[in-house]
Amino acid sequence: MSSSAQNFQWLHRGTSEIFPNQPESNNPEENLEQRILNSDRPLRVKLGIDPTGTDIHLGHSIPYRKLRAFQDAGHIAVVIIGDFTAQIGDPTGKSDVRRQLTPEEVKANGETYLKQLRPILDFDTPGRLEIRYNSEWLSQLDLAKIQELLATMTVGQMLAKEGFAERYNQEKPIFLHEFLYPLMQGYDSVAVDADVELGGTDQKFNIVVGRDLQRHFKKRPQFGLLLPILLGTDGVQKMSKSLNNYVGLQEDALSMYSKLEKTPDALLPEYFELLTNLDLTSLPENPRECQQKLAVEIVSQFHGKDAAQKAQQDAIEIVKKGGAGSDSVPKYSLAEVEFPAKIFYILNVSGLCKSSGDGRRQIKGGAVRLDGDRITEENLTFNSPDELSGKVLQVGKKRFVRLV
Amino acid sequence: MSSSAQNFQWLHRGTSEIFPNQPESNNPEENLEQRILNSDRPLRVKLGIDPTGTDIHLGHSIPYRKLRAFQDAGHIAVVIIGDFTAQIGDPTGKSDVRRQLTPEEVKANGETYLKQLRPILDFDTPGRLEIRYNSEWLSQLDLAKIQELLATMTVGQMLAKEGFAERYNQEKPIFLHEFLYPLMQGYDSVAVDADVELGGTDQKFNIVVGRDLQRHFKKRPQFGLLLPILLGTDGVQKMSKSLNNYVGLQEDALSMYSKLEKTPDALLPEYFELLTNLDLTSLPENPRECQQKLAVEIVSQFHGKDAAQKAQQDAIEIVKKGGAGSDSVPKYSLAEVEFPAKIFYILNVSGLCKSSGDGRRQIKGGAVRLDGDRITEENLTFNSPDELSGKVLQVGKKRFVRLV
Repeated sequence: MSSSAQNFQWLHRGTSEIFPNQPESNNPEENLEQRILNSDRPLRVKLGIDPTGTDIHLGHSIPYRKLRAFQDAGHIAVVIIGDFTAQIGDPTGKSDVRRQLTPEEVKANGETYLKQLRPILDFDTPGRLEIRYNSEWLSQLDLAKIQELLATMTVGQMLAKEGFAERYNQEKPIFLHEFLYPLMQGYDSVAVDADVELGGTDQKFNIVVGRDLQRHFKKRPQFGLLLPILLGTDGVQKMSKSLNNYVGLQEDALSMYSKLEKTPDALLPEYFELLTNLDLTSLPENPRECQQKLAVEIVSQFHGKDAAQKAQQDAIEIVKKGGAGSDSVPKYSLAEVEFPAKIFYILNVSGLCKSSGDGRRQIKGGAVRLDGDRITEENLTFNSPDELSGKVLQVGKKRFVRLV
Repeated sequence: MSSSAQNFQWLHRGTSEIFPNQPESNNPEENLEQRILNSDRPLRVKLGIDPTGTDIHLGHSIPYRKLRAFQDAGHIAVVIIGDFTAQIGDPTGKSDVRRQLTPEEVKANGETYLKQLRPILDFDTPGRLEIRYNSEWLSQLDLAKIQELLATMTVGQMLAKEGFAERYNQEKPIFLHEFLYPLMQGYDSVAVDADVELGGTDQKFNIVVGRDLQRHFKKRPQFGLLLPILLGTDGVQKMSKSLNNYVGLQEDALSMYSKLEKTPDALLPEYFELLTNLDLTSLPENPRECQQKLAVEIVSQFHGKDAAQKAQQDAIEIVKKGGAGSDSVPKYSLAEVEFPAKIFYILNVSGLCKSSGDGRRQIKGGAVRLDGDRITEENLTFNSPDELSGKVLQVGKKRFVRLV
């Protein structure tokens, strides 16, 4: 392959940063593109899985999509399941995140995680995927080796890490073992001979530690390739289960479709770039068509094209059933509501609930939906009729009104 | 033993601090005296040896003398040779002190060290001495256990340690592995079930870490007993080989005697208290007699009474030979010297050296002595004849004058 012959669009699409991005002084001829071109073997591209959780969403999928692009370009995806770290947990017991898991839990989580990645990664082409558990090497480290790892960094360097610096300045305790995590992740790169490590932009520090440790152990340092943190479907905060602005990889086709066809306009370019392989120069001009195309495309990735199209049809049906021509949905005029109005008040005045208190209870019980989306915030406030007009408000399966 | 029957003078003589020195809230009935009185078994009294060096001097002997006092009171001296720490060395290679030693070097150093302690500790009474190498337990630690140790402390606590705090504030690098040393020393206390740990006043932090780790591992925390850092024979700086103000345990009787009979008056009470078991209330009033008594007593500890008395006789002979009645030493009158005067100038004007330059060279070459003490400072300055009067100034073995 010659430099001119190879198109590196797959490498740069949606990528926040590749480092080092300048040829380095001790290695003047090389950047990642050069490394790819010069290498006489496939590169080993590392991505770590934290098996403490199992619910993964589109935000988590971004680096795996890039990993797939490397596989498609002929390279080896090295997926590392951090079973050792998950098993030792947080010995202080102070962090919920780092709860100690049993080996069985860790194994089950790892398998659930991998299952969800099946639609994204190439599991089938021989030699394109290596799955490793970091207990393989971390459980073998003794005190002499761990001291060697620790001796590669200073307290000042470690405290410069985002997160540590703030906590230290705010005089919040940082326990010494927390310094081990970046070093363990870095040592994973040594153990698997990574040429490239992928991660979110929040992983830069850890990937740099990996480079330093590889250098220390006389190995060629990896490149880092950082990917953006995906915004959630609210278009405001990063996608997160706890913020309820996420699309989970295990959701059914209709649920995925319904969420994605409402993607805010401002998010569309980013979602197309990061979550699809579609040509960004030939997207529909109409925003509504754009939303639908995005939704069909992403649902197709996880459930296949047929299921995606069926989900689209089902969604249209649901809207039709609740549509203007339908007799089955009673209407309630928003003219009778004084704005700003809280949701429990609307539940009461519209007759769906016997009282505001009943409205609150139904919300708490998870029975209230607006256009199919569950409402969980009792004090959700609407400032004008426009926010509600045309939507179906529903309590349980049988009570609903269209707000007009 | 009842409280009234036991005299704890041996415990408190020369001791800087015992902690906790107040009964603790979770253990209200106990301090170290109570622990000794209440215990139905001998206490285990820990003291660590760093086998990176072998030249030990009277300053090092202080905690061993206290350890011996515990042995004599029926307790068990647990001497820990830090072979593991010495073998892993300082992996940064930045510290000369922590050079990595081979197992053979460490073993040889440990044995040399122990040999020098023979005159101090009771090696013979059965059950009074336990010698342990910390590789026994430290080499068994894995990453999970080390993380557990690290998790017992915060960065803030560690940086509060004297030495670290200053370096951090001065932005001097502190390497992460340096945090391991206090934890390793502390874990030694866990491993040997120490009831008491002895150390210099600079060891308080490490001994406290040992207490914390024992608590963490559900063991009874040790007491700390701190001993002062001995001043050197100059009476100004702490005893240290590099400052040439030391008396080494391996020195011959005459060398020891000659140094100790010049102990500055101000140091005598401290040296008697820390380096002898003599009754402090019945020392000679005459300072010269005091110096001689101290010298004989200490030399006796290491070389026996006969050798000490012979050293005293030899020293007297030497002074006599160079004394006022002797013809063998030419005199040089200090009246011919203008004060303040530098040593190289006196070497010149007294005719011992051909020039001031020659004087400097002889000092550099180590050939110049004043009353037998080697002079190493070329610019050593004397402010008045009183500082020199009666002393023998000497270059090499054959040229000397008595300054009068």
